[in-house]
Amino acid sequence: LAKEKKMVEEITSMSEDFAQWYTDIIKKAELCSYSGVRGCMVIQPYGYAIWENIQKIMDKRFKETGVQNVSMPMFIPESLLQREKDHVEGFAPEVAWVTHGGNEELPERLCVRPTSETLFCDHYSNVIRSYRDLPKLYNQWCSVVRWEKTTRPFLRSTEFLWQEGHTAHATQAEAEERTRMMLNIYADICEKELAIPVIKGQKTEREKFAGATETFTIESMMHDGKALQSGTSHNFGDGFAKAFGIQYLDENNEQQYVHQTSWGVSTRIIGAIIMVHGDDAGLKLPPRIAPIQAVIIPIAMHKEGVLEKTAELYERLKKSFRVEFDDSDKSPGWKFSEYEMRGVPIRIEMGPKDIENNQVVLVNRVNREKTFVSLDNVETELQNLLDKIQQQMFDAALENRESKTSSAVTYDEFKNIIAEKGGFVKAMWCGDEECELKIKEDTTATSRCIPFEQEKLSDVCICCGKPAKHMVYWGKAY
Amino acid sequence: LAKEKKMVEEITSMSEDFAQWYTDIIKKAELCSYSGVRGCMVIQPYGYAIWENIQKIMDKRFKETGVQNVSMPMFIPESLLQREKDHVEGFAPEVAWVTHGGNEELPERLCVRPTSETLFCDHYSNVIRSYRDLPKLYNQWCSVVRWEKTTRPFLRSTEFLWQEGHTAHATQAEAEERTRMMLNIYADICEKELAIPVIKGQKTEREKFAGATETFTIESMMHDGKALQSGTSHNFGDGFAKAFGIQYLDENNEQQYVHQTSWGVSTRIIGAIIMVHGDDAGLKLPPRIAPIQAVIIPIAMHKEGVLEKTAELYERLKKSFRVEFDDSDKSPGWKFSEYEMRGVPIRIEMGPKDIENNQVVLVNRVNREKTFVSLDNVETELQNLLDKIQQQMFDAALENRESKTSSAVTYDEFKNIIAEKGGFVKAMWCGDEECELKIKEDTTATSRCIPFEQEKLSDVCICCGKPAKHMVYWGKAY
Ligand SMILES: [Zn+2]
Ligand SMILES: [Zn+2]
Repeated sequence: LAKEKKMVEEITSMSEDFAQWYTDIIKKAELCSYSGVRGCMVIQPYGYAIWENIQKIMDKRFKETGVQNVSMPMFIPESLLQREKDHVEGFAPEVAWVTHGGNEELPERLCVRPTSETLFCDHYSNVIRSYRDLPKLYNQWCSVVRWEKTTRPFLRSTEFLWQEGHTAHATQAEAEERTRMMLNIYADICEKELAIPVIKGQKTEREKFAGATETFTIESMMHDGKALQSGTSHNFGDGFAKAFGIQYLDENNEQQYVHQTSWGVSTRIIGAIIMVHGDDAGLKLPPRIAPIQAVIIPIAMHKEGVLEKTAELYERLKKSFRVEFDDSDKSPGWKFSEYEMRGVPIRIEMGPKDIENNQVVLVNRVNREKTFVSLDNVETELQNLLDKIQQQMFDAALENRESKTSSAVTYDEFKNIIAEKGGFVKAMWCGDEECELKIKEDTTATSRCIPFEQEKLSDVCICCGKPAKHMVYWGKAY
Repeated sequence: LAKEKKMVEEITSMSEDFAQWYTDIIKKAELCSYSGVRGCMVIQPYGYAIWENIQKIMDKRFKETGVQNVSMPMFIPESLLQREKDHVEGFAPEVAWVTHGGNEELPERLCVRPTSETLFCDHYSNVIRSYRDLPKLYNQWCSVVRWEKTTRPFLRSTEFLWQEGHTAHATQAEAEERTRMMLNIYADICEKELAIPVIKGQKTEREKFAGATETFTIESMMHDGKALQSGTSHNFGDGFAKAFGIQYLDENNEQQYVHQTSWGVSTRIIGAIIMVHGDDAGLKLPPRIAPIQAVIIPIAMHKEGVLEKTAELYERLKKSFRVEFDDSDKSPGWKFSEYEMRGVPIRIEMGPKDIENNQVVLVNRVNREKTFVSLDNVETELQNLLDKIQQQMFDAALENRESKTSSAVTYDEFKNIIAEKGGFVKAMWCGDEECELKIKEDTTATSRCIPFEQEKLSDVCICCGKPAKHMVYWGKAY
């Protein structure tokens, strides 16, 4: 008992200090650890296994829409980065510069990619000649570097892992369609696979990506009332194409500029999984991406037949599930806490009485409910419970988000909610950057997005009182 | 016909200029292209798909032995790189240095990882405490950077993709076992999946990895008589552990140093696939890793029923194979050359006559043999032919290697073979680095490995005449 207590004590409670809770969980569950390199993470096996499961799902979805994977260099020559004006302004202040190769100073500095638009554009300008070469639907899985001043594991680190898709199309309509398609795929994966409900919308001019004509985003709500941008999809129009000279001969033999998009999801999403689903006992991992979907724990392990029967069950279940078998010397109670802390959706208990009754006990991580199921159809029952947990987690996350979503029609009300309750605040906006800036200064909340699903809360901007153009989700964000 | 001829003409013949043949194939098959960054490649979709298939196979094999994937930072602080003396000497002259983050000069330079021993050691020194924490069996898929003076696609580039496994063990025996286990897995994958026969052996002191106590290697033979090191596995003993202070408490509560290994295979292996299997018509890809295992080409496409039936066949075959369907307007002849050039193992032809006879024609890329098979069991026949081609490719590569392997007992003979015929030359060696250096100076051939399978060709060193210690494979190498 002392040990079990200790494990939970090592995790600060959410309500006491959310940031510390987050850090404790990451450390305790061995998701990642800091390295000797400032702001860079070592993603440990359990954390990386989550990322691999997300990758597998995303990669499959991308490929189903015709996307092909490639690998671009990690370096960008300074002159190439400078080709598109808005883009370089957005990124140059936060890149790492390589100045020497071996013992020699380089004739031109190279930055470590903070994102790869410029490299894809350079390549596209070399390989796109005719309308027959279009569309190009490329993606890469890699890491990028942004020189951040303050860092937090998964949420903001100097180097992080992501995928970046970069496409080139013959028409603006096609680019627009792809931009929305990828946002919808991201939203679908978040909701169905990660059990994270998201708000889909468009970023304001101020918040959009450097060089984009429009940026779409999915925004999710954490347990502490802060929002997290969970994926973005950018439409570049022909801006990059003009800066990089990416032209094709159309069917009438005329030169046209391509229209481009890019879209990305990063290991930040693991931060979202932790902060959307976790509780004071530790992680809760959605069954579809949990590295361990169920753990088998023998009860009264030293009684005759227990080890044998549980090992048998393990061999049987591992054919269809990501299952683990813990026959270590630790006490069952210690193991219960350990796997709860690691967010394993289902614990399978099996002791002498269960063996006698030809049954096992399934324990649901979300609500700790126990179900006794017959060994004869344990696969079906296990799968059903995994599906149920997946749904329960989504429902709980949605309920939490709704409880943390408010509307405001006066600025006092708005400021109060942000200060007292946090969460998303829906409010009308005139469309002027000035108001956006004032709101940020007054409250530290930023515009999260102009949601695709608009509501009319009032006729006037919450900040300046001028006629309103959009309903906007506002909130403090990671 | 003119067009078909043109495609082959764009590829320089092997016998005329092997290096140009290699470059032509890579360009024509769109495997990779140079980027605007000196010595860095853009791996294009077809090339990357080969890498993904190799990754999938390797990753599965690694995980079956308990290996877990992680992600380490791409940067190494200069002081960390310098911790192990031999290691830094080997790598410091060829690394890229990051000196600035954003607009600020860094207090300490960071190198972009040329390999990650130092990072894994740093992490292991933080997380290994007791014998219960061992073994650590970590791997990462990433890119590394080595500032190369001359570069060639896949074979030698400033940045390249690879996997690097890094393990820590309680005992030297366990580390030795892991070093050999991984070499055997590499050899097995090369032979069974890539159809590349390899020589397994140990590197000499001079050729071993910087910081290793022993380096094992698999060496393969290219079409032009040059060898290619295709994978290496290193035993570090406790050298790194001592330099980085990686200790654990053993079962008797005593501090012990861990014993470590590392092992890697890179995108160089794609260069080997090209140069072991290709011919003047283009690539030949081993069925197990070919992105397209078979292409369906409709014959007399505009005749009634042809498009319909071939499309139907495509829908049917794509359930079990990586198959493509080319219903473009290009002539069948053009398509034949195109897919031969891209190394697709099997072409499936289907025209009006075939439809009438309920058959298709399978054409083998290796020998262009045609087989008529019934539509009723096309899946079985296709799989059989893929397996047969896989074996034929291995057999041909082995035959080629044997025809390019010689033995020498006098130094004149040795020098003659290297100069005239190339390939592997087996010869006895006294074990002195002096002779190794002299041989390199005289012939440009290097010791490829001391093969595990030793033969006694004579009693004395081929170079100095002193008593021989080992039989060594020598050769010019990529
Ligand atoms: Zn306003
Ligand atoms: Zn000698």
